[in-house]
Amino acid sequence: MTPRIAIDAMGGDDGVRVMIAGVALARHRHPGFTFLLVGDQVRIEAALEHHPGLRSASEIKHVDGVVKGDEKPTQAMRKAKSTSMGQAIDAVKTGAAGAAVSSGNTGALMAMSKIALRTIPGIDRPALAALLPTIEDNDLVMLDLGANTGADARNLVEFAVMGAAYSRILYGYDRPRVKLLNIGTEDLKGTEELRDAAAALGRAGHLPLEFLGFTEADKLSRAETDVVVSDGFSGNVALKAVEGAARFVTDLLRTAFSSSVRSKIGFLISRPATELLRHHLDPNNHNGAVFLGLNGIVVKSHGGADAKGVANAVAVAARLVEDSLIDRIGESLSDIAAVLPHNGRAA
Amino acid sequence: MTPRIAIDAMGGDDGVRVMIAGVALARHRHPGFTFLLVGDQVRIEAALEHHPGLRSASEIKHVDGVVKGDEKPTQAMRKAKSTSMGQAIDAVKTGAAGAAVSSGNTGALMAMSKIALRTIPGIDRPALAALLPTIEDNDLVMLDLGANTGADARNLVEFAVMGAAYSRILYGYDRPRVKLLNIGTEDLKGTEELRDAAAALGRAGHLPLEFLGFTEADKLSRAETDVVVSDGFSGNVALKAVEGAARFVTDLLRTAFSSSVRSKIGFLISRPATELLRHHLDPNNHNGAVFLGLNGIVVKSHGGADAKGVANAVAVAARLVEDSLIDRIGESLSDIAAVLPHNGRAA
Repeated sequence: MTPRIAIDAMGGDDGVRVMIAGVALARHRHPGFTFLLVGDQVRIEAALEHHPGLRSASEIKHVDGVVKGDEKPTQAMRKAKSTSMGQAIDAVKTGAAGAAVSSGNTGALMAMSKIALRTIPGIDRPALAALLPTIEDNDLVMLDLGANTGADARNLVEFAVMGAAYSRILYGYDRPRVKLLNIGTEDLKGTEELRDAAAALGRAGHLPLEFLGFTEADKLSRAETDVVVSDGFSGNVALKAVEGAARFVTDLLRTAFSSSVRSKIGFLISRPATELLRHHLDPNNHNGAVFLGLNGIVVKSHGGADAKGVANAVAVAARLVEDSLIDRIGESLSDIAAVLPHNGRAA
Repeated sequence: MTPRIAIDAMGGDDGVRVMIAGVALARHRHPGFTFLLVGDQVRIEAALEHHPGLRSASEIKHVDGVVKGDEKPTQAMRKAKSTSMGQAIDAVKTGAAGAAVSSGNTGALMAMSKIALRTIPGIDRPALAALLPTIEDNDLVMLDLGANTGADARNLVEFAVMGAAYSRILYGYDRPRVKLLNIGTEDLKGTEELRDAAAALGRAGHLPLEFLGFTEADKLSRAETDVVVSDGFSGNVALKAVEGAARFVTDLLRTAFSSSVRSKIGFLISRPATELLRHHLDPNNHNGAVFLGLNGIVVKSHGGADAKGVANAVAVAARLVEDSLIDRIGESLSDIAAVLPHNGRAA
């Protein structure tokens, strides 16, 4: 089945034009895709004038309201049905689309998706998963990144299963390597929740993943694992710390290179090398955070993503529809119950 | 008073020679310092042969035992008195030294220091504070970095006071800017502990610090604050994520620069620029993590520190003795009680 993707055309820092340009790029790369473009009809039509190929593959659904970037989730939810974000999610719920993509307010997108789509039976809480660059070609799948502030052992085991399903679809691994984020690698390190989750995952040899214990946050880019699981607070801190440090180093580099004529010349000569670095670190190449654990696929594109970034997020969404992410998560759920004794909660 | 510093000469990845070379460098920069060198007398004497100036300013205390890098804190504590680490801490306890510096096992150093020196009356738990490079000249003071896995509102307020005292001594600020690490900057974000601590610090206008609310982990290097406070788990994750990301980017850079003859030439030409970057990021220039909240000063030097790094850690220790860190923390304690109602616990 060629998936139809609902696009919240009004989200993102740079508005309708960038979203539509990104969707057009995705369509160009994957001619089978079709789209439901949700938002202000006049502005969408105007943006489509530059992309006639996309016009024929798209339906427009006019909605007046938008969710603002600084709006509180509770506020946004009250008017969900009248917003482009809410209607894009609703299209997934009704089956009018196989997945939704938005560059808007993350908290609002999460809250609306949770209410509209609900969690898969057997999953306690959804999680937000993102892709981090590594020293190898394939990205690291990292979750949870802030959908929840805490997580008990059961949540962590569910996150492991969902993250592994995502990694299997992205890279075709049979049994992705999974580690839990901790502040040390010895068995006794960290919180009780982490130790219980590690024990449960250690018993889960029959799950389609290979559990390799704990990892520390300085190893995220080392490609020593395919999935890193954490509670939402720690995951959010780790992800943002990585983003901030990468920006810090590249800023220092820019300052250093422009500090003298000599270094400027050196920079010009070695530009192909620094371009390679820029390409590797460009968040647009790792765009597309996914809400895992819901009865429907919702992909969060970075608010500052460019057209290429939006196209990557759309491709991720399409891939997850085609490869039946939700069924794949569901398949492992009965196996989770077996490693979580005591009424399904970890020992 | 010129402080005498106890040195655990046996800790560190590169052993006695690097420790003694670092101490010699510190002595060269600060001729008033004197030292108690604790560890294997024969090896210390051998290392001192290259540093006759240091010999005359030092006393050697022979101890046979060492704490290994991979030893569990509980294991190390049982033999504390017979180890160079334990005896260096003991010298602080007895007053034979004003501070102790060790490059050994962090967990063991923390556990031994806590038992031997105990917390300052009024401080619930000690915290580990480190220095992070920023885009400005002055480093960021960050704590807790793993002395505790969790932290309640009271602990966080105490960490704020202790971190501010450290920052005042390092940089002479009257009221260092303090923020709490969170996953968003709005009032309602994060855990109850964080919100309670923010409320308490908001009432604490009389404390010698300026509380500026929440910060996220991508802002750590932006120099928008002087102190960042978090629970030990999140702080450890953030610090390690920053270290890992900085190494990742510099590794990518090295690979990029060596990818072609052209880029190698560009690198050679711009070497002064990249050296500047290397200098700014070199952990040796930000060495010296401090256990705050104990009745004595214990500084943890990075296990992989070179002589310059060790010298910086020694200078930090001396500075904290000279400027009476412990008295400075103590001064604020009665003021904390006022913002923490309900038997001294946050509302």
